[in-house]
Amino acid sequence: MYTDSVTYTADRLIESTRELLWERGYVGTSPKAIQQRAGVGQGSMYHHFDGKPDLALAAISRTAEEMLAAAEGQFTAPGTSVERIAAYLRRERDVLKGCPIGRLTQDPDVMADPVLRRPVEQTFTAMRGRLAEVLAEGRDRGELTDTLDPAATASTIVAVLQGGYVLARAADSTAPFDQAVDGVLGLLAAQTR
Amino acid sequence: MYTDSVTYTADRLIESTRELLWERGYVGTSPKAIQQRAGVGQGSMYHHFDGKPDLALAAISRTAEEMLAAAEGQFTAPGTSVERIAAYLRRERDVLKGCPIGRLTQDPDVMADPVLRRPVEQTFTAMRGRLAEVLAEGRDRGELTDTLDPAATASTIVAVLQGGYVLARAADSTAPFDQAVDGVLGLLAAQTR
Repeated sequence: MYTDSVTYTADRLIESTRELLWERGYVGTSPKAIQQRAGVGQGSMYHHFDGKPDLALAAISRTAEEMLAAAEGQFTAPGTSVERIAAYLRRERDVLKGCPIGRLTQDPDVMADPVLRRPVEQTFTAMRGRLAEVLAEGRDRGELTDTLDPAATASTIVAVLQGGYVLARAADSTAPFDQAVDGVLGLLAAQTR
Repeated sequence: MYTDSVTYTADRLIESTRELLWERGYVGTSPKAIQQRAGVGQGSMYHHFDGKPDLALAAISRTAEEMLAAAEGQFTAPGTSVERIAAYLRRERDVLKGCPIGRLTQDPDVMADPVLRRPVEQTFTAMRGRLAEVLAEGRDRGELTDTLDPAATASTIVAVLQGGYVLARAADSTAPFDQAVDGVLGLLAAQTR
């Protein structure tokens, strides 16, 4: 529960912006719709945020932080490097809805604005970086073969997730996502010693 | 050169629909815009096509056929199974523009219409099927280890391409696409004997 009503108002505005960005994209998210969904007046909104771009940045940044924090839960769990990556890839996901950060790459207004694109880019860079660390750790511990390239393999894993969402949407089924994940985990398993 | 003016008109309508679907998505592609771009009158358009959904289906199907035909060029070239897959993954692509079929999975109007979604789904199913055949051939010839799962690995490869486009757009750079491709080819190379 929030006891600070100022924080609570800002929070509701961010959450409403997140929902609207997800449902309607940037162009379809009007300041008025944000205010209505948050139950906040125009004056209050402009007290907390400079406007729609500022709110969108806060909304995208919060989604990005949550995504990285959730992944960190799997990356720092006990187990071998491949076990932790498998737990991350196989964790419960709303596959047919897709990735709220990945989908922003198809939003022309977000991609055209360097300030809004930055957290999208940073999220993928951070995810690839963390996966590369987990893979390098596995290699250094002797779990994985020396020939495995941690950075390239990490990019492959992030691409499999993002591409798996595309295949699942095309099929209106989670099956191709699961198969793509099985495939990369099979290739990784062959690299364990 | 077309000598048959009826075919030529239908062809111009399909090409204009392809361009508009790519630039504006389904909702932004009006019959009037298609006619104007094709330089074809309304009566002539409705002589050839039942309307926008019919034209969109023809446009999507043509894009899908071209994509599969282009891949077939690499899949049937000389070389080992992994060499042919590498040639396919590394062939010249307009990475930052992305995949004209994959992008349709983000078009809500296309995904909501089973008739328009079908060629999108079929393209990915066909691509996964062909890659699985190329991998199975490599395994049967003794180029690849017996433990490799052709179907799952094929889904991984298609996902890497589609996800690679997402990462490239986020970064406004082809580098993460290339790295994801390098990563999956490195994992595949480790499966060769």
